Amino acid sequence: MSRPNTATLLLRCPDQKGLNAAIANLLVRHNINILDAQQHTDEEAGIFFHRVYFDVVGMAASRDQLQKELAEECARYGMEWRLSFAEQKKRVAIFVSKYEHCIYDLLLRHKVGELNCDIPLIISNHEDLRYFADVFKIPYFVFPINKDNKHEQELKEIALLQEYNIDLIVMARYMQVLSDSMINCFPNRIINIHHSTLPAFKGAKPYHQAFERGVKLVGATAHYATADLDEGPIIAQGVEGSSHEDTIEDLVRKGRDIERVTLAQAVRAHLDDKIIVYGHRTIVF
Amino acid sequence: MSRPNTATLLLRCPDQKGLNAAIANLLVRHNINILDAQQHTDEEAGIFFHRVYFDVVGMAASRDQLQKELAEECARYGMEWRLSFAEQKKRVAIFVSKYEHCIYDLLLRHKVGELNCDIPLIISNHEDLRYFADVFKIPYFVFPINKDNKHEQELKEIALLQEYNIDLIVMARYMQVLSDSMINCFPNRIINIHHSTLPAFKGAKPYHQAFERGVKLVGATAHYATADLDEGPIIAQGVEGSSHEDTIEDLVRKGRDIERVTLAQAVRAHLDDKIIVYGHRTIVF
Amino acid sequence: MSRPNTATLLLRCPDQKGLNAAIANLLVRHNINILDAQQHTDEEAGIFFHRVYFDVVGMAASRDQLQKELAEECARYGMEWRLSFAEQKKRVAIFVSKYEHCIYDLLLRHKVGELNCDIPLIISNHEDLRYFADVFKIPYFVFPINKDNKHEQELKEIALLQEYNIDLIVMARYMQVLSDSMINCFPNRIINIHHSTLPAFKGAKPYHQAFERGVKLVGATAHYATADLDEGPIIAQGVEGSSHEDTIEDLVRKGRDIERVTLAQAVRAHLDDKIIVYGHRTIVF
Amino acid sequence: MSRPNTATLLLRCPDQKGLNAAIANLLVRHNINILDAQQHTDEEAGIFFHRVYFDVVGMAASRDQLQKELAEECARYGMEWRLSFAEQKKRVAIFVSKYEHCIYDLLLRHKVGELNCDIPLIISNHEDLRYFADVFKIPYFVFPINKDNKHEQELKEIALLQEYNIDLIVMARYMQVLSDSMINCFPNRIINIHHSTLPAFKGAKPYHQAFERGVKLVGATAHYATADLDEGPIIAQGVEGSSHEDTIEDLVRKGRDIERVTLAQAVRAHLDDKIIVYGHRTIVF
Repeated sequence: MSRPNTATLLLRCPDQKGLNAAIANLLVRHNINILDAQQHTDEEAGIFFHRVYFDVVGMAASRDQLQKELAEECARYGMEWRLSFAEQKKRVAIFVSKYEHCIYDLLLRHKVGELNCDIPLIISNHEDLRYFADVFKIPYFVFPINKDNKHEQELKEIALLQEYNIDLIVMARYMQVLSDSMINCFPNRIINIHHSTLPAFKGAKPYHQAFERGVKLVGATAHYATADLDEGPIIAQGVEGSSHEDTIEDLVRKGRDIERVTLAQAVRAHLDDKIIVYGHRTIVF
Repeated sequence: MSRPNTATLLLRCPDQKGLNAAIANLLVRHNINILDAQQHTDEEAGIFFHRVYFDVVGMAASRDQLQKELAEECARYGMEWRLSFAEQKKRVAIFVSKYEHCIYDLLLRHKVGELNCDIPLIISNHEDLRYFADVFKIPYFVFPINKDNKHEQELKEIALLQEYNIDLIVMARYMQVLSDSMINCFPNRIINIHHSTLPAFKGAKPYHQAFERGVKLVGATAHYATADLDEGPIIAQGVEGSSHEDTIEDLVRKGRDIERVTLAQAVRAHLDDKIIVYGHRTIVF
Repeated sequence: MSRPNTATLLLRCPDQKGLNAAIANLLVRHNINILDAQQHTDEEAGIFFHRVYFDVVGMAASRDQLQKELAEECARYGMEWRLSFAEQKKRVAIFVSKYEHCIYDLLLRHKVGELNCDIPLIISNHEDLRYFADVFKIPYFVFPINKDNKHEQELKEIALLQEYNIDLIVMARYMQVLSDSMINCFPNRIINIHHSTLPAFKGAKPYHQAFERGVKLVGATAHYATADLDEGPIIAQGVEGSSHEDTIEDLVRKGRDIERVTLAQAVRAHLDDKIIVYGHRTIVF
Repeated sequence: MSRPNTATLLLRCPDQKGLNAAIANLLVRHNINILDAQQHTDEEAGIFFHRVYFDVVGMAASRDQLQKELAEECARYGMEWRLSFAEQKKRVAIFVSKYEHCIYDLLLRHKVGELNCDIPLIISNHEDLRYFADVFKIPYFVFPINKDNKHEQELKEIALLQEYNIDLIVMARYMQVLSDSMINCFPNRIINIHHSTLPAFKGAKPYHQAFERGVKLVGATAHYATADLDEGPIIAQGVEGSSHEDTIEDLVRKGRDIERVTLAQAVRAHLDDKIIVYGHRTIVF
């Protein structure tokens, strides 16, 4: 996890010579020490991806100054970029319905310090898990959703999310399909957990599908939500063996373990600025 | 692996009381010691599955006598059953094309004693791997296949397989779709390895499909071949993590490792009489 | 998980012919339907292990009658045995100190129905996790322990455990070594989670040891507590890859995930009567 | 795997500002395009590790010139470094005894193009596997070893290895302990596979030890050979689940699969210049 007094720069651009040098020179000019860096080039597509994690102690420039110079340098190379300082914690909204395993897990991880973020609110379409939000003293907002009010309720949710300056939405087994308006407000900033190893068993009741097909593995997929359901860029996938002894209830139980670990892994990668989306794929440094 | 002087009884029938007792009593009557036994009941479907692995040393009946009595007892309960003696090694034909990793692996495992079978012949549609069959002194038959001769060549293959009394066909990355005639000659006795975790990425070029989709796992599936391609009963599946660093070549390389391990696992389960097919699912004890 | 109206019989004895038949006949005599059964023979040691899971609906005997007949039959063969009815939930005491991940996990699993038991009390040497016991309304008893009062405090704990008719103690990262008196009161009924893949990294600070050694895997081991620390019969082990990028904090974090999954797996196996201890080894059916 | 027309630079030095920039500037000055790069800093120890994989097509300097300039630049920062061109294949000697699974595996991988190296000779203390070396037309030298001739035989082996300009020795289940003289001739250039997850089960017969202890996992460890047996820097570890059903023979069988995969993984990492040794630990980029 990003420790205090560090920053992370993510960038991508058409591949060309001198990209590393350009960034490294800019940073060293301000007396910045790079702690970790990874670079990847998709040679076929000709795209360059870069993550630089650096110490800001002793940095000989203000953060604004650094942002400004990066903007100039990145413009020169046609780079898309994002600079995050560890102290500026991302603000995460968790969406839940009635299943508790994923939200328990996220709140536990947050409590023990695994997730570098604030969780200022939880949104649900049901009252069921309010008691648990209360344990952690996190505001819990309920927007009951039915066919008629869905659009209207989502608009209220969006307003609330914006009021709270939310950076990332985590769908912790939220059992509603988000509308395009919601998704467009938070592009590549909504993480969903699907309870199968996509593209296998898209759609509803994947454990029932898996049971019917007699597979010997069950799994889960964490991905960014896109308008095209179950087709968003995959961030992480987990899997476990299954056998004829597993009833559907057993698959669901195994799934709970995989879902929460896989979702947490994706959320942590996002919070630590390790992910670059790229078409419908991801680079996860 | 089944050790010498043992036998394995596999059976299935509609669930009813007294099934275990019926089998156990029959065996103890002939002074037979059960070494391992597993039973599974599909409560929903009401089907009983049983595997009994026993010592034949000290058995107070001839094999024929035992077979006869089992036939009678099993008829009483509507049981389908199969009794195999470890000494009567199954006869396996390996089908290959040009990829060598699966056949190398099977022949190595056979040599070091992991597979309780004979491998009296290898069939291919190409000459390429003859040199390797020669190392192990296994007859290597080539039946080149094109659109026009496919039916005719398969008939020759079937005749050859029957001449060699083949019990099990292993498609070790054999790159031809078998016709229904072939499959019907060897029902639940042809094991294929598909290079994805079915039902994801059916059909051709699964690694390319996986790469395009940006998945974070690659895998393989060993299944019995059925007329409906890629829909046969799954025996074993394997999986490994992948990342953006993996080119298609890397996925293929990782796949080779998973394919051979998964195929060998399925073949071993079949040879040790651990599999009962059941609709398009399997019980693998 | 054992469903209602079922029972599980676990037994072991010197191997001899007719054991399966004896048990199967006794059960069928009372019109009992066996749902699942596994048998294992350690041929070298000559020991027979058996687990029978059966339906008690339609059983033509009282539970007492069945117990009595089993006692007689088992005496005949020198069998050690245990019969458990699913409705008679085991009573579990959780021991914790300050780490919350294992107890959170167990209580979540209990809540969603993964663990067939009652959890009537939690014992700790610290106040820290009382707030969480309160969420689930489970009595939380604190026995602060120091060098001088250890013996005396353990005696009080034992008395309390006996008062609550506790069947199983789960040490959910309880950071005290139990004395022999405690262990002797609950033979093979105390499950501990050690944060390494024993026998590697016994003793204190295993993640630090693992980091120093530069291993590429971290893991955890659930085992029955015995007088000989870290040498108890192993029930389950879990493992995950690590790399040079992992700091000690990362290893601890990965460890938390493995510990809770591994501990829960062991507890579930115990509750479902799937474990037979055998020297310092276990059979986990 | 490194593709043609690429080179890899590995370096380590005390951490200081400007290291990335220094290397990136040097490379861009010669019109070199970086394809992949990873950097890691051990903040506690204050050491910087760097791997740069770059395209040499269009490089505006001779290889000698590049080497010379790198030497100068690296001297300035106290860097230890190694530059490898993909075309200059490393020369690998495989050491074997009687177990065939690891050498089969390495030769198959070499044949299908997974290993970027030449394998000009195989050394053994037994004749047994000569037939297999013959299949691949690789010279096979036998040096029988007993207590009396060990030193003398090793000197001959060293002479032979030097005559063949061997860069890397792979001990593919070679059942002799190498003397310090051999190890000192090839520091961090001898890879061994130990058949347990070190530090568990050091020494002889680890599968027997694992069986006796009743562990639920078996594994293998690939490490650089050092004078202190089983204590060399670990490169890769693999693991698989085991149960009471596994006899020692089963553990050995499972071990064979893990050993060959783990050994191959380590060898590939070495050949692709992904490993930096560091005390008794490794960085594997």
